[in-house]
Amino acid sequence: MEEKMLNWLYKRAELTPNRIALQIEGQTWTFSELHQNVRMLAYRMYGLGMKKGDHVAFLLNNDLYTVEIIHALTYVGAVVIPLNTRLSRQEIAYQLQDAKVDYLLFDQEYAEQVPEPNGKGLSVVRVEELYRTKLIEGAIQTEIDLNQTFTILYTSGTTGKPKGVMLTYGNHWWSAIGSALNLGLDVNDRWLACLPFFHVSGLSILVRSVVYGIAVVLHKKFDAKKVNQSIKEDRVTLISVVSTMLSQMIEDLGDSSYPESLRCVLLGGGSIPQPLLAKSKQLAIPVFQTYGMTETASQIVTLAPEYMLDKLGSAGKPLFPSQIKIVDGDREMKAGEAGEIVVKGFNVTKGYFGNEQATNEVIYDGWLRTGDIGYLDQDGFLFVLDRRKDLIISGGENIYPAEVESVILEHPAIEEAGVVGQSDPKWGQIPVAFVKVKEGQEVTEAELISFCKERLAKYKVPVSFTFVDELPRNAAKKLLRRKLVEQLQSK
Amino acid sequence: MEEKMLNWLYKRAELTPNRIALQIEGQTWTFSELHQNVRMLAYRMYGLGMKKGDHVAFLLNNDLYTVEIIHALTYVGAVVIPLNTRLSRQEIAYQLQDAKVDYLLFDQEYAEQVPEPNGKGLSVVRVEELYRTKLIEGAIQTEIDLNQTFTILYTSGTTGKPKGVMLTYGNHWWSAIGSALNLGLDVNDRWLACLPFFHVSGLSILVRSVVYGIAVVLHKKFDAKKVNQSIKEDRVTLISVVSTMLSQMIEDLGDSSYPESLRCVLLGGGSIPQPLLAKSKQLAIPVFQTYGMTETASQIVTLAPEYMLDKLGSAGKPLFPSQIKIVDGDREMKAGEAGEIVVKGFNVTKGYFGNEQATNEVIYDGWLRTGDIGYLDQDGFLFVLDRRKDLIISGGENIYPAEVESVILEHPAIEEAGVVGQSDPKWGQIPVAFVKVKEGQEVTEAELISFCKERLAKYKVPVSFTFVDELPRNAAKKLLRRKLVEQLQSK
Repeated sequence: MEEKMLNWLYKRAELTPNRIALQIEGQTWTFSELHQNVRMLAYRMYGLGMKKGDHVAFLLNNDLYTVEIIHALTYVGAVVIPLNTRLSRQEIAYQLQDAKVDYLLFDQEYAEQVPEPNGKGLSVVRVEELYRTKLIEGAIQTEIDLNQTFTILYTSGTTGKPKGVMLTYGNHWWSAIGSALNLGLDVNDRWLACLPFFHVSGLSILVRSVVYGIAVVLHKKFDAKKVNQSIKEDRVTLISVVSTMLSQMIEDLGDSSYPESLRCVLLGGGSIPQPLLAKSKQLAIPVFQTYGMTETASQIVTLAPEYMLDKLGSAGKPLFPSQIKIVDGDREMKAGEAGEIVVKGFNVTKGYFGNEQATNEVIYDGWLRTGDIGYLDQDGFLFVLDRRKDLIISGGENIYPAEVESVILEHPAIEEAGVVGQSDPKWGQIPVAFVKVKEGQEVTEAELISFCKERLAKYKVPVSFTFVDELPRNAAKKLLRRKLVEQLQSK
Repeated sequence: MEEKMLNWLYKRAELTPNRIALQIEGQTWTFSELHQNVRMLAYRMYGLGMKKGDHVAFLLNNDLYTVEIIHALTYVGAVVIPLNTRLSRQEIAYQLQDAKVDYLLFDQEYAEQVPEPNGKGLSVVRVEELYRTKLIEGAIQTEIDLNQTFTILYTSGTTGKPKGVMLTYGNHWWSAIGSALNLGLDVNDRWLACLPFFHVSGLSILVRSVVYGIAVVLHKKFDAKKVNQSIKEDRVTLISVVSTMLSQMIEDLGDSSYPESLRCVLLGGGSIPQPLLAKSKQLAIPVFQTYGMTETASQIVTLAPEYMLDKLGSAGKPLFPSQIKIVDGDREMKAGEAGEIVVKGFNVTKGYFGNEQATNEVIYDGWLRTGDIGYLDQDGFLFVLDRRKDLIISGGENIYPAEVESVILEHPAIEEAGVVGQSDPKWGQIPVAFVKVKEGQEVTEAELISFCKERLAKYKVPVSFTFVDELPRNAAKKLLRRKLVEQLQSK
């Protein structure tokens, strides 16, 4: 099969030049304007000495220039390596080295995290410098090859050492197509982006924008009040969020509701508490639960709209044309049996950059081991139980932290909850909980234990509750259970 | 890139089993029901002895069993060769031989067109026999390879000898995706199919149905009154038609109008008379002019919705991610200059079955020469002038029959018009017209010549008008100008 196609922004600017590509705080740019800016920026990149095949990392906020830089790197033909802005200088140095980065672009704000040049050919460039660099006009890469690596994104690191997930143009393309075949597509769609572009959940919105020809309504930071206002005033039709964001949005919403124009709240980022789904259902918020990861270029399983209510809590079915299986080693599990989720599809990574061993550990026969646990119900709907690494095994029984957290969150006084396993000489592990109490509310450990006992098998009930002001989360607001484990160990 | 995916109907039955796949005269079938029927039918095909890789042709009306047979052949892994039911026995014999057909399935209605078995391994099977064949259960092909040939469709034969256009699963897939990225996609879409499945314009609707998960509202025959009724009563959102169909539909519509649910009338099948477009605009019918051919697996250029009114008469821009150019030999033409339309894209055929010479004549460097003439305007919109073979060259001037026909059709007494070139010792060729007068109307040749003189350069005005009861058209209602040329020659 022919594997080249026109660069997406380039093609889009030719096809629908006057459609809005981007809106930031009321200001808008058409695809034609974005293309013009991006072409100039590519010339500045040539001015810096960048060339096709270079590895270019960045430490940037979500802003106009970030959108331009990402697209300009595709015009140059460079590999895009977005770095998590919350990382320490040491972590960043590791990823720069691991990804063999040639250039690091950064916001002044993150200057302190930028490692010293190490004499190994890494250039570090502030965004302001890039935009002041003299133009060198050169041919832009108007064609892309679907097999070419577009991005290297480091896994969020909720477990183990970060690995650089290579995603090709093809991986991103098929992800966008699979999403459109499930969610539908309207030329007037507007996708609100408030997740960082260094996570695939945020980055994939930019890809969809140019492939679909729809506008991105960009928020530099997530602010529940501003997001709610934007949904109402900017005709937002789709938004990608994780649980904690949606909770805050619902809280801010109060007695008001979303306009009918909002047709999809794509809810991902790990297991989702049942009370949140129930509340969303009650408020008729069009929540589409989804399951995906960096390795699948965002969504791979999403609930189709007609099952939104009947299959509450399910992540849905694999997007066209992807596939999933539940396995235990080589054995494929039956309906209802929990096991490891393995996935296959054109959106799935070919592996980790420069790490054949890690690649071989997770990829076999075209299938990717996700390390997550779940089951398929009788109708083939996926229910994600938990990350395998977070699984608590107590006296031979499996305890899924997400299930226990979900129950704790049903308690009216609790705002956030995290459950992890504590070593125990008798049971191997026993569940313990960390909770954040809602402002102005009070509750005791005994009350919470009793609350859980009414709702859970005894072995699943946390033996202790630690009250905290905040739970550790990554930039995408995903709960970092390993940080809780560290807290336990340092006790 | 990985090139296998799940069979579309199989995947669709898994993903959205309860959605309506098909509606015929009020009766409906879900994707799950269709899949069950199709699996049984594949077993019957095994019962007949069919196997993966077989070439299976059919002479069938548009009906439930035709839909089932097409999908069942994909479950068997056979190549699907739909034959035009209007062909003579001799023409059919040629195509069966040319395509190396193993099985011919046919409706009793077409029994007389079925050639005698020739002892070369061709089996001919009536549909009723197929459905009475005993089942042999076997593995169905749940995966397809995008590089595998799905269909061989013979070019409509408006010019020269029919050639078997090979279209892979990938060609059909990308065609469906390109269309969705342009027209948008709603899970509640319903596509009315009244074009024969032996044309790519009809067949591609079946592909879109399973890829998108939307319903096909199937009409066995085109009947303007029934189609209009169906659009109103069956919540039809999209329909594919050619000019003559739309004319009849508008006539039948009278003073009524289409409901807002009808969001797209996809109008293809050759050059479209301006008066028809003007009328559609006046009636606010959402016409999307399109340009495509068997070789491009249906549409390759379609007008985006926002340009429907501003670029009336244009076929639009190449669908994502396809490309077009206008050339004269090796030279690429500038905006406004007419030349041959050449196209490129994942939806474009790799060639003609068993005919390397014909393939090499039209395909070069991944581009396909369409044999059609057109130009791109300053904004990159394609205007199709005519088929190159139909071009009339008179005293060195190019005359595009479609342009002249369009003018003749503006005359209130004219229902249909066809213009071709007649040999002339002085000018090389001179234009002559064939017209069908509307019922109850009268007009003379002198009046028509005078009407044209007011609107066209003198050399474009037909020197004669022949009044006919009917113009020759193929099953897709495309005007067959070569038949008019034959009429001229036999005079």
